[in-house]
Amino acid sequence: MFVMPKKNRTRLVRAAMGEIPCDLTIENVRIVNVITGGTFPGRVDIIDGVIAAVRQPNSGDPRRGATVLDGKNAFLAPGFIDTHMHVESTMLAPENFGKAAVVWGTTTVVTDPHEIGNVAGIKGIEFMLRSAEKSPLRQYVLAPSCVPAAPSVERSGACFTADEISRLLDRENVLGIAEIMDYLGVCHDDARMHAIIGEGLKRCAFLQGHAPGLSGKELCAYLAAGPQSDHECHSRDEILEKAGLGMRINARASSIADNAKAAAEAARSMRWNDMISICTDDVHAKDLLKSGHVNHVAGRLVEEGLDPVLAIRMGTYNAATEYGFADLGAIAPGKVADLQLLGSLENLGMEKPVSVFVAGKLVAENGAPAGGKPGQAWYEQENTVKLPQIGSPADFDLRAPEDCGKAANVVVINADLAEQLSPDYRAQRASLPVRNGKVRIDDPERLQYICVANRYGAGGRTIAVVSNFGLTSGALATTISHDSHNLTVVYTDSASAFAAAKELERVGGGICVAKDGKVVDTLRLPIGGLMSPLPVEELAAEIDRLEDALSELRSGKRDDVLLRASVLALPARPGVIITDRGVVFGDDLSWIPVFD
Amino acid sequence: MFVMPKKNRTRLVRAAMGEIPCDLTIENVRIVNVITGGTFPGRVDIIDGVIAAVRQPNSGDPRRGATVLDGKNAFLAPGFIDTHMHVESTMLAPENFGKAAVVWGTTTVVTDPHEIGNVAGIKGIEFMLRSAEKSPLRQYVLAPSCVPAAPSVERSGACFTADEISRLLDRENVLGIAEIMDYLGVCHDDARMHAIIGEGLKRCAFLQGHAPGLSGKELCAYLAAGPQSDHECHSRDEILEKAGLGMRINARASSIADNAKAAAEAARSMRWNDMISICTDDVHAKDLLKSGHVNHVAGRLVEEGLDPVLAIRMGTYNAATEYGFADLGAIAPGKVADLQLLGSLENLGMEKPVSVFVAGKLVAENGAPAGGKPGQAWYEQENTVKLPQIGSPADFDLRAPEDCGKAANVVVINADLAEQLSPDYRAQRASLPVRNGKVRIDDPERLQYICVANRYGAGGRTIAVVSNFGLTSGALATTISHDSHNLTVVYTDSASAFAAAKELERVGGGICVAKDGKVVDTLRLPIGGLMSPLPVEELAAEIDRLEDALSELRSGKRDDVLLRASVLALPARPGVIITDRGVVFGDDLSWIPVFD
Repeated sequence: MFVMPKKNRTRLVRAAMGEIPCDLTIENVRIVNVITGGTFPGRVDIIDGVIAAVRQPNSGDPRRGATVLDGKNAFLAPGFIDTHMHVESTMLAPENFGKAAVVWGTTTVVTDPHEIGNVAGIKGIEFMLRSAEKSPLRQYVLAPSCVPAAPSVERSGACFTADEISRLLDRENVLGIAEIMDYLGVCHDDARMHAIIGEGLKRCAFLQGHAPGLSGKELCAYLAAGPQSDHECHSRDEILEKAGLGMRINARASSIADNAKAAAEAARSMRWNDMISICTDDVHAKDLLKSGHVNHVAGRLVEEGLDPVLAIRMGTYNAATEYGFADLGAIAPGKVADLQLLGSLENLGMEKPVSVFVAGKLVAENGAPAGGKPGQAWYEQENTVKLPQIGSPADFDLRAPEDCGKAANVVVINADLAEQLSPDYRAQRASLPVRNGKVRIDDPERLQYICVANRYGAGGRTIAVVSNFGLTSGALATTISHDSHNLTVVYTDSASAFAAAKELERVGGGICVAKDGKVVDTLRLPIGGLMSPLPVEELAAEIDRLEDALSELRSGKRDDVLLRASVLALPARPGVIITDRGVVFGDDLSWIPVFD
Repeated sequence: MFVMPKKNRTRLVRAAMGEIPCDLTIENVRIVNVITGGTFPGRVDIIDGVIAAVRQPNSGDPRRGATVLDGKNAFLAPGFIDTHMHVESTMLAPENFGKAAVVWGTTTVVTDPHEIGNVAGIKGIEFMLRSAEKSPLRQYVLAPSCVPAAPSVERSGACFTADEISRLLDRENVLGIAEIMDYLGVCHDDARMHAIIGEGLKRCAFLQGHAPGLSGKELCAYLAAGPQSDHECHSRDEILEKAGLGMRINARASSIADNAKAAAEAARSMRWNDMISICTDDVHAKDLLKSGHVNHVAGRLVEEGLDPVLAIRMGTYNAATEYGFADLGAIAPGKVADLQLLGSLENLGMEKPVSVFVAGKLVAENGAPAGGKPGQAWYEQENTVKLPQIGSPADFDLRAPEDCGKAANVVVINADLAEQLSPDYRAQRASLPVRNGKVRIDDPERLQYICVANRYGAGGRTIAVVSNFGLTSGALATTISHDSHNLTVVYTDSASAFAAAKELERVGGGICVAKDGKVVDTLRLPIGGLMSPLPVEELAAEIDRLEDALSELRSGKRDDVLLRASVLALPARPGVIITDRGVVFGDDLSWIPVFD
């Protein structure tokens, strides 16, 4: 991470006056004015990483800088700021994520290291901060508020109380508390959330909200409690209500959610839309490589009818005011020189910038990071996958209750989350044959076994049945399993499940495909079982290869099967969830017995 | 001053949820939404001085508060915030200023105690803070940056170096550094201004600018050095250039300056005009009583074509963002309940609010401060007027050089400042007869004597001749004499000058009119020779009486004669200036000999 440049005021002032030469002059550009709107021809002089002067043509310009870049009439905009994202979703280490994002014009991100926090606690977040320092862009961190998401029904690798939050908030580059998801806890002044938020309020830190659908008195209570933003809005009216009460709204177009249409409609319905900024939330490696980052969301907003200067303002200036970044998000004297040179404003979502600067330093040019092809990211080898409870294939057998006779009534997890979202959704069950004490699945095209096993050495696992997953043979195992990231295995036979689980234990986590009791392919994610040290192109190729291997075991075309496997254990959603401790109903966290 | 209410989050959240009753419900109002624009019908619930909920009609409202105010369909807006003002200009103590301003809907002011700072140093500013605590509105202070304005040519009662600024910045309710007027010093990185600004930057404090006409490289240098705002813009284009570079612009309609037309034109020319807030700068007691305060500026902006919701946003939300007041400037859950109930939005500049609340407490109703008629303000009796060098009327004689013969060529200060503003303006001179060693004025309708005497006990005085002042007999003496507030006397005869000066020494300062060697009337300003302990109505009546007395000694109708007398010694302006140390040319602070 580039720290903020330390300003030498004497040099800045003298450079502005033309008394000493600047380091860099970017001239012959159309400057995107995100403060009062519009574009104007001009030139920017930079010294010590800071903008000393913004000059209009024929203003009797002082001498140019030591280096002069001819912008050839391209647009010079501030670098994009991402108001909310999880680096872990890219499966890249922060170091290589930075190199992958900066080519799209992103120069600052505020990250929620919630996933690694669940796996490795404060140590994991310290890794994110250290890895980020090796990246070309500015990566700030928010302290994850919900580790684990539902302490009563699952066990993760760490548990954050107000103490841990307090320790994190006192670290450099930790700006506040990340998406405060437990909005019911907040609205009912639950003691744990009260204490965690209190640590943020004490420090006047940023309190990031997460309040899907919240309205009326609950919204008032949530805002009165402290959270300042929301990135979960689905409709124009939801945005209007929230923004009108001073809540910052993060327009989002991630790999798994897109509210750009609602955000654009809301922006058009509001007289002043400075409450709207941009976040990417979850972007997968392949999308980051092919579709972009904050620019992709800005492009989506343009597609939905906003003009590019407004979309850029949302992705720069509005984001900076959300966080109180006085020195970022605009092109003006005294601001840090985070800049992107854009060939056009009409293709934000498609075209990479001609060049990108962070604190006046060239970090990307013509779509490639400066400094050559990225290599493997630095990380400390530590295997976080510990499965003492898995000793043989039999440990994946679904054992029926002793007295059940020849058939058992088993709970079925529906992998189609859209079906689970119906408000009267309840657990489905299936009567399945029992042989030798084990529940058998006769139609593996329709149903498969699912196991969620604690992977932090605490032992324990839950085995049930899954529908609508689409696996026809073998096993898919993953250590990406939100939010606790235990081991989730979907399988048709115990031998394949065992092979995949043991492979992931051996390599320190990742995603593994096995068939006939043998490993077919493995995506190694040795950093907490979540991230790869590979650069984005190589990782994307590995994902492609894994998906090819997986498609051999599948019926139908489920492009999101990896994602689907990773959210079956997520308790922060409605519907039926399977954790390392059992099967649970997400709406009220009540237990559901596997067998009737 | 009301301090910020300490939020009890549990009570706030429970009140928002309707689980406990609020203190106050204001219902049946049209809420002015300054965040995203517009007005909407609704109700506001307040507890512990903080807004717990903003509810729309028929939203299944929880029970109402212990007190219920029926707004009768009036408009509920946030209280006004004044971004820059000098309480001393009102001649009221902060305690009584607060009572006078709050009836116009002002609930927060950021003041520059520059005048009392010049008179009494840090002790004077401490008085302002303590007096403010007795007032019903929130009065923050900025540390005056230029005490005295021109140390090389005048002596005031105090001198602030970076040390004093540092001590002030560490005090509660001191938010930053006030109007940094020495823009040439800033642009040339002068050591004193560098050190003073450094104290602010060190603390991330607010740095208020003052940069009349600054443009191009000097503007860039000034912004790069740190100042964030300007209230001296005169034209649309000046505002566009400054705001486009991120400078906060304070629209102003004071008793002595009005840029509302330029501000409104600029606002219409900018796509986003959130850089524009409102300040009153210098408002005299009579104007405060009759024309209003921030509302007057908002009204002027409406007269110039802006719509009232935008004008209110400038006077509330934009001001709050300028200072980073996260809890002020809007009506939303968690914000402090600073509110004004307005009968209409069309008469901002004329009509007083129906009621005004600061932190949920009623502070004004139907144009009168709550708690009854204000009395005398508290202050500590201390006479700051010390004139050891004035012992007899002869001390006001203008003594000619010994060798000058029967006539002397004397410098003439032109009291018409507009004439002095011409760029090639130079000192005027007059050849006047000398009798008994004294310069005589034969035509007292055209020329009078002027004396500026140090009034802090250091001795020293300068006597010269003034034109275009309009006094025909007697003397006008004042201890309001910007920025050092020495004693300025304009007179036709030494006996009257002596009588007036000695009267002001006796009463501790103020403004005195004398004739034929006798005092005719005195406006006592015993608080630093600048402020009266009287409430605004009584002070306004005293000013009327003094002006009547003064009009007896004047030719023509010069309504601003008191102001005119108070700026002849101001070195921070172009033209010819008289200080306690001599006559000086303001543009370059070079000395001008009184006699050729």
